[in-house]
Amino acid sequence: MKIALAQINYHIGNFGKNFKKISDAIKKAKAGNADLIVFSELAVSGYPPRDFLEFEDFIDRCDATIEKIAAECVGIAAIVGSPAKNPEFKGKDLFNTAFFLEDGKVKSKNYKTLLPNYDIFDEYRYFEPNNEFNLVEFKGKKLAITICEDLWNVGDDLLYRINPMDELFKLNPDIMINIAASPFDYDQAEKRKSVLLQNVKKYKLPLIYVNHVGAQTELLFDGGSMVFNSKGLITTEMKYFEEDFLIIDIKDVEETFVVNKKEKPSKISLIHDGLVMGVKNYFEKLGFKKAILGLSGGIDSAVTLVIAVEALGKENVRSILLPSRFSSDHSIRDARDLAENLGSPYDIIPIEEAFKSFTGILEPFFQGLPFNVTEENIQARARGVILMALSNKFGYILLNTSNKSEAAVGYGTLYGDMNGGLSVIGDVYKTEVFELARYINRDREIIPLNTITKPPSAELRPDQKDSDSLPDYDILDTILYQYIEKRQGPNELIEMGFDEKIVHRILKLVNMNEYKRYQTPPMLRVSPKAFGMGRRMPIVAKYLA
Amino acid sequence: MKIALAQINYHIGNFGKNFKKISDAIKKAKAGNADLIVFSELAVSGYPPRDFLEFEDFIDRCDATIEKIAAECVGIAAIVGSPAKNPEFKGKDLFNTAFFLEDGKVKSKNYKTLLPNYDIFDEYRYFEPNNEFNLVEFKGKKLAITICEDLWNVGDDLLYRINPMDELFKLNPDIMINIAASPFDYDQAEKRKSVLLQNVKKYKLPLIYVNHVGAQTELLFDGGSMVFNSKGLITTEMKYFEEDFLIIDIKDVEETFVVNKKEKPSKISLIHDGLVMGVKNYFEKLGFKKAILGLSGGIDSAVTLVIAVEALGKENVRSILLPSRFSSDHSIRDARDLAENLGSPYDIIPIEEAFKSFTGILEPFFQGLPFNVTEENIQARARGVILMALSNKFGYILLNTSNKSEAAVGYGTLYGDMNGGLSVIGDVYKTEVFELARYINRDREIIPLNTITKPPSAELRPDQKDSDSLPDYDILDTILYQYIEKRQGPNELIEMGFDEKIVHRILKLVNMNEYKRYQTPPMLRVSPKAFGMGRRMPIVAKYLA
Repeated sequence: MKIALAQINYHIGNFGKNFKKISDAIKKAKAGNADLIVFSELAVSGYPPRDFLEFEDFIDRCDATIEKIAAECVGIAAIVGSPAKNPEFKGKDLFNTAFFLEDGKVKSKNYKTLLPNYDIFDEYRYFEPNNEFNLVEFKGKKLAITICEDLWNVGDDLLYRINPMDELFKLNPDIMINIAASPFDYDQAEKRKSVLLQNVKKYKLPLIYVNHVGAQTELLFDGGSMVFNSKGLITTEMKYFEEDFLIIDIKDVEETFVVNKKEKPSKISLIHDGLVMGVKNYFEKLGFKKAILGLSGGIDSAVTLVIAVEALGKENVRSILLPSRFSSDHSIRDARDLAENLGSPYDIIPIEEAFKSFTGILEPFFQGLPFNVTEENIQARARGVILMALSNKFGYILLNTSNKSEAAVGYGTLYGDMNGGLSVIGDVYKTEVFELARYINRDREIIPLNTITKPPSAELRPDQKDSDSLPDYDILDTILYQYIEKRQGPNELIEMGFDEKIVHRILKLVNMNEYKRYQTPPMLRVSPKAFGMGRRMPIVAKYLA
Repeated sequence: MKIALAQINYHIGNFGKNFKKISDAIKKAKAGNADLIVFSELAVSGYPPRDFLEFEDFIDRCDATIEKIAAECVGIAAIVGSPAKNPEFKGKDLFNTAFFLEDGKVKSKNYKTLLPNYDIFDEYRYFEPNNEFNLVEFKGKKLAITICEDLWNVGDDLLYRINPMDELFKLNPDIMINIAASPFDYDQAEKRKSVLLQNVKKYKLPLIYVNHVGAQTELLFDGGSMVFNSKGLITTEMKYFEEDFLIIDIKDVEETFVVNKKEKPSKISLIHDGLVMGVKNYFEKLGFKKAILGLSGGIDSAVTLVIAVEALGKENVRSILLPSRFSSDHSIRDARDLAENLGSPYDIIPIEEAFKSFTGILEPFFQGLPFNVTEENIQARARGVILMALSNKFGYILLNTSNKSEAAVGYGTLYGDMNGGLSVIGDVYKTEVFELARYINRDREIIPLNTITKPPSAELRPDQKDSDSLPDYDILDTILYQYIEKRQGPNELIEMGFDEKIVHRILKLVNMNEYKRYQTPPMLRVSPKAFGMGRRMPIVAKYLA
């Protein structure tokens, strides 16, 4: 049996475009004599459609698209993900469904049993869990079709009481097929392989796994669709961060005894590739071409600019240098050097006049009170006004350049440097930003070395350094990682050897600054625990604050 | 049997304060010879604790607090909501639990079966559903203890396959007790009564219902705890929007045959009272006293100011009038009149200098391009910088004054008038803002009549009116209500008789402006479908956009 795997970048709610891509893949699969083509989870709507699923009109459009796809399935069968209405009176209105299309119509539907509802997932918000188990018979083979999470209830902390593949296994299937929308983080590809392998080893069946690829706002889907034979070898591993198409013969798969293992990519290269795809897709899917950003000479905006240039092209990213009276000469020089290295347009717009105008207006009210964070914020906000004015006038999307360490402790100005349509490195800790810079410079010096080696500073008051108000980034980032990604509390952190005062101070800063993060742009998610939809915290709370 | 109902305003994660309030109520109940005291759902942690529930340290503190409360339960029993660890290996780590405390210790635990996971609710994110049903025997009575949603699977669209009260009813209980965290919206009190009454009529048992009260960021809990006798009469209805405490005797409850029906409060009075509580609690729980806001002379900032003054006191709300070259004389006069009517401090800070400074800085880049939305936004953002500078310098929280109609169609400036720590009327449509203004003026003219009668305008260009770019608010708000609250699609709206072009334009505006709403402050929730945590939409999507 020949099976085509279609790894596609869908666009949420863009039924016309999703249908076109699916239809093109079916034609290609037919031309390659495939018997069956497999698309990923909720392919028709794009993933995650979120509360659009509550609109009957939206579901009707999904149904109509499924009908159109079914009509193309003559001489070939297809497995396509889409929501399906729950015909029963009790339970939620929808099932997350794998449609089996054959002979021009819907032959059967398999529903998802395990509905992820943690981190960025909200599936139990919309879907009723499946409770009936059936195989699909096709050309003499019995297919066990499951959807993403259905295969993930393995390991030593079982999230669910039942295991759908156990139920299907009782019916003696020949092949497992799993359609997925499994989002990227820098650990996810390895975890995914391990989880799928546990299933293959347990059931001793070949497994076809088809994943989403592409970015949907902050969520990155890395693709990497795979085929395992029943002995547990990965005989096919599709591209990461790109669309891909492939036809395999299940007989060949089973007869494979040795495969060349691919080299495992580094964490930083994965983050880099994910971010580039994230920026690219954000602009493409919103119909924008051009980005603008504030380039300070520091490492955060430097890395953001390079990634944006890779995603959008050097001519499509305009950098604005916005020096204040506190900006050092090297900052302007470093920023200019970078833009020139990239051959990317830049302008210099000093903010002194705007700053003076505000401090002048406010003088009668401030009555000689000393310069403090207020005046620092005025500078950041004046920059924000200028960048947004250029964005409004010329149709740029403003890219936010804040990193995760800053977002965590609130080291940033709301309505100032926290502005932007998209945060590129908001899920990347400062220490990882340095690694990204070195990765970018791996072949030649693109980011000026001085940007990487000088001590980080916001340059909002004379001789300011980040280290004036924050612990060293090595320590800060480790505490943040343990608290945010690993959910370790103060006692565990102190037991790890961190200074008690620092621990309490950092955790308090993180919790206190929830109100700032509430208003930040979406941040491209590269870690297993990013700020935003995956981390939901109360603002008005007193825990560790 | 004498039962005390403790309707308390908890603070998320403030274990010390929550314990103190619970402990004080136990003392009061003992003094009143109560046999049992009932607290609400997740009383120990406050509701909703959100992802703090993923921290073992947080759960340990809940457990420690339960132990402390149990120690006080000598000579009295208590029912208290708190999370409990799931002792089993399979399933999620926690149960949403009603602890029964007696003789100084935990006597039993009842877990929540139906876990709401729609709108603002995320309970399946954290909790395993209960699947064992037991009554609690106490002083010769058998108590059927359930938690909030457990009683809500009634009516003609059943969200869940099982009904926990059906299971408990098989065990022959004498009394139903439901502990809740049921958030306010302007329809909710009536809906709640109807749902509870359906249970009372079905099982023919008395029902003790204890709800949360108070605001947790954007969520308002209105209290209104109740006692029904088995004949379906509400014999006790506790205060709305305030803490309350009461001891009832179940014998008296059952012997009540007639009750005086309270007059049903108007929708607008409920919204008003909810918003006042929301502002008050936001400041109290964050430890702030003073607010600042931009007062334009228009109706939105006028209503916001009055509500803030009611919540915080007239001396604690500072209004800033920020006229531009396009502001009309009547705007400044109306704003000033209002502040003076209220006896609340105000200042006038013209923004002309800041505006000129930005347009001057940008002149070489704009190269004679015509005045457009860019220059409008510069004015809004210059105001934002000034208000935030005052907020930073003096420790005010900036109140956002945007309404729901604007938030829906994106009629507002990001990093300008969309700024603020809290949006007071962000869940109130413009037509409802007018109703609020009339309600505020019900006894005397507090808001100048001219503010209410003049045509709404942003005054960002000469002779601008909202009606230049938006349909009449009557039409706009009805379309928005049908789309947002009622999830009606374009076809349904056109069938209702709305103009096709207007429908498509409005729905497109709503969907396109998701990126702006992503960055708005939390909005006090008064409707059944508010922007924010209760409405989760993708930014990068093509549906109706």
